[in-house]
Amino acid sequence: MTGRGGGRISRRGLFGLGAAGVAVVGAGAATASAVTREAREHTPAAGASAASGSVPFYGGHQAGITTPAQDRLHFAAFDVTTRKRDELVDLLQRWTAAAARMTQGRDAGTFGAVGGDPEAPPDDTGEALGLPPSGLTLTIGFGTSLFDERFGLAGRRPPALADLPAFPGDDLQKDISGGDLCVQACAHDPQVAVHAIRNLARIGFGKVAVRYSQLGFGRTSSTSRAQTTPRNLMGFKDGTNNLKLEDTDMLREYLWAAPGDGPDWMDGGSYLVTRKIRMHIETWDRAPLAEQQAIFGRDKGKGAPLTGAAEFDAPDFAKTGPDGKPVIAADSHVRLAHPSSHGGARLLRRGYNFVDGSDGLGRLDAGLFFMAYQRDPRTQFTPIQRTLSAKDALNEYIKHVSSGLFACPPGVVDAGDYWGRALFT
Amino acid sequence: MTGRGGGRISRRGLFGLGAAGVAVVGAGAATASAVTREAREHTPAAGASAASGSVPFYGGHQAGITTPAQDRLHFAAFDVTTRKRDELVDLLQRWTAAAARMTQGRDAGTFGAVGGDPEAPPDDTGEALGLPPSGLTLTIGFGTSLFDERFGLAGRRPPALADLPAFPGDDLQKDISGGDLCVQACAHDPQVAVHAIRNLARIGFGKVAVRYSQLGFGRTSSTSRAQTTPRNLMGFKDGTNNLKLEDTDMLREYLWAAPGDGPDWMDGGSYLVTRKIRMHIETWDRAPLAEQQAIFGRDKGKGAPLTGAAEFDAPDFAKTGPDGKPVIAADSHVRLAHPSSHGGARLLRRGYNFVDGSDGLGRLDAGLFFMAYQRDPRTQFTPIQRTLSAKDALNEYIKHVSSGLFACPPGVVDAGDYWGRALFT
Repeated sequence: MTGRGGGRISRRGLFGLGAAGVAVVGAGAATASAVTREAREHTPAAGASAASGSVPFYGGHQAGITTPAQDRLHFAAFDVTTRKRDELVDLLQRWTAAAARMTQGRDAGTFGAVGGDPEAPPDDTGEALGLPPSGLTLTIGFGTSLFDERFGLAGRRPPALADLPAFPGDDLQKDISGGDLCVQACAHDPQVAVHAIRNLARIGFGKVAVRYSQLGFGRTSSTSRAQTTPRNLMGFKDGTNNLKLEDTDMLREYLWAAPGDGPDWMDGGSYLVTRKIRMHIETWDRAPLAEQQAIFGRDKGKGAPLTGAAEFDAPDFAKTGPDGKPVIAADSHVRLAHPSSHGGARLLRRGYNFVDGSDGLGRLDAGLFFMAYQRDPRTQFTPIQRTLSAKDALNEYIKHVSSGLFACPPGVVDAGDYWGRALFT
Repeated sequence: MTGRGGGRISRRGLFGLGAAGVAVVGAGAATASAVTREAREHTPAAGASAASGSVPFYGGHQAGITTPAQDRLHFAAFDVTTRKRDELVDLLQRWTAAAARMTQGRDAGTFGAVGGDPEAPPDDTGEALGLPPSGLTLTIGFGTSLFDERFGLAGRRPPALADLPAFPGDDLQKDISGGDLCVQACAHDPQVAVHAIRNLARIGFGKVAVRYSQLGFGRTSSTSRAQTTPRNLMGFKDGTNNLKLEDTDMLREYLWAAPGDGPDWMDGGSYLVTRKIRMHIETWDRAPLAEQQAIFGRDKGKGAPLTGAAEFDAPDFAKTGPDGKPVIAADSHVRLAHPSSHGGARLLRRGYNFVDGSDGLGRLDAGLFFMAYQRDPRTQFTPIQRTLSAKDALNEYIKHVSSGLFACPPGVVDAGDYWGRALFT
């Protein structure tokens, strides 16, 4: 930076990568090669740790789906408040440019938090100044409501984006469900994830408004075999059987929309289902260990199925105990959620634990913000959830309070591209 | 662990410190030397990083006050629901034993999440199994309401625990203010902080109920010169002038209650003021940089006072600009909050950024959960806040929505001691 007020500062300059790298690249003027250089400079190999490094923004698929699940989440759903299609497209272009910058550890805008005209509002809100990229990914989704009459998109709605049915026990709150757009920000530093969503909201002022926003403090799934399986707030390992980035064939089968599946604009994209699942944790905490383990069908300590010895042992659903009953109960979570109960259907789960304070009745308002990516919710999430909502013994301890369904388009391939370009052109 | 269901498991065993360390030490049977050994094994020097290591629990002062501020917070206030003094004392003893264990990376109870009788609820909720201590500290405070008629403590209320006055602009919500007890859990891993509060709530079932609970995702102050100054959600460096653990003389003067200050039971303790400060961040984000800097009296990038060049330069309040006006405005935050405006009075601030989703009006529900420790709020927080609430230019962008005042007793000296022993005996 060259001085107070009128000077230039960049996150990169501040976190010690040197002044030589602080090129002033306007969003519109950014070239693919500049971005590639930027990405290269920020790879963990260049000195940063995996937790502080950057994830490439450009690619055939959006980052933040198979990216090894970061530790923290800030998810936001937006209502589009403008009725003008051009303004929406312009916003998506601005958002894409800002996302390309922020995921590489740069400010949201050309002049940052302390540059440009001191009589104008800053181009970035500043709370991430000095922080590294922290593995930030930003992933956009288009909600079912975006395909109504407002923007002329009704004819381009993918069949796979069919409204989810009502499930038994649903207690959905409308104000924290749905949304025209969503952005999932994942990072290893929550300040970086919060900063990103906030700056997108700032850039969208007058065109979009935050419908709801959710912080998640701990990942509840692994999306890579290099990660250990984390625990949910019921104390159990979660997502042992999750789709992982190494499962190349299964990702093709169960994660990415492919040519012929629906409209071309979704080729290489994926469908996101979100469900906010409130846990009655105080009640759960008073349930005996044996009951907890019977409900999950797994050992609490090691995460092994009750018929096995280690976490990744395949459950033996046929095995019976001395009483003649199945060792893994018919209404256990592991049995009902298992691919074998759904013709092999799988999900890539990417949920997070949440605590939203307390509920005014002496209980923590806590649970799981469930997120799952898939190729077609009609044959994946919906049948799985139909089974779980009807039979899962866990239902006594949980309640689904929100629901969202979004079409997440393919990746942005270079600086001339933007989120959803193929949908709008 | 020795087997499924009936076996033993410990967080320590799981995170790789070896089976030899997994001694089964019941809370009641723990000796000071066992705890000292435990602490020694968990010090960062023994192999863990600073972010995963443990902070000693026993000592003359409670940990979590001058401890270098950890990155994450879970704060909870409790209402005591029992009317029996003995039950309250018993709870404080149980809590102390659990806190001594959890801060050293162990389960909340003797048999953990997967030990003991499988037909009984587990002794620990399990979601921190396998996680290291992560710098967890647990700090207790006794609220003003604890000193009413219920427990015979009215005569032992410290004069310094006088109710805070109403301040101009306060918009306090009763349901997120006050509390008979509070526990501040700070850690580098939010899952560890959440786990600790949840287990204390579980242990307290039937005797206390959570009144409110607050997650903070990023520290907004440094409490050691070894830390860099973080940024608040207004994008400014916060707490440059904070009291720090290296300021030995000033800690004696401004942080710790001393013999003669009030009742003996508080000697070595400190008083905590909490204020939830909602920021109108969308409005702030539209304020020009020059206005933002004038309001704070500091440069946004470097954090230097507007009369200086570097963050720690002393502000020159007398300096005037070419227009004859003070360079640091009369209503700027740095001037009004500065010790020189309050006879030298200082605070040890330990606040956290929060985002509690959105407010239903298209805005993020975000701000600062302010926490400050001090020797006497009557001569420290109260006069400072009186000045700020009357004159601070920042008031246009913030609103105080909660308030709490707690007497935090001195530390627990060994395993025979407990939180607040001197108050109840």
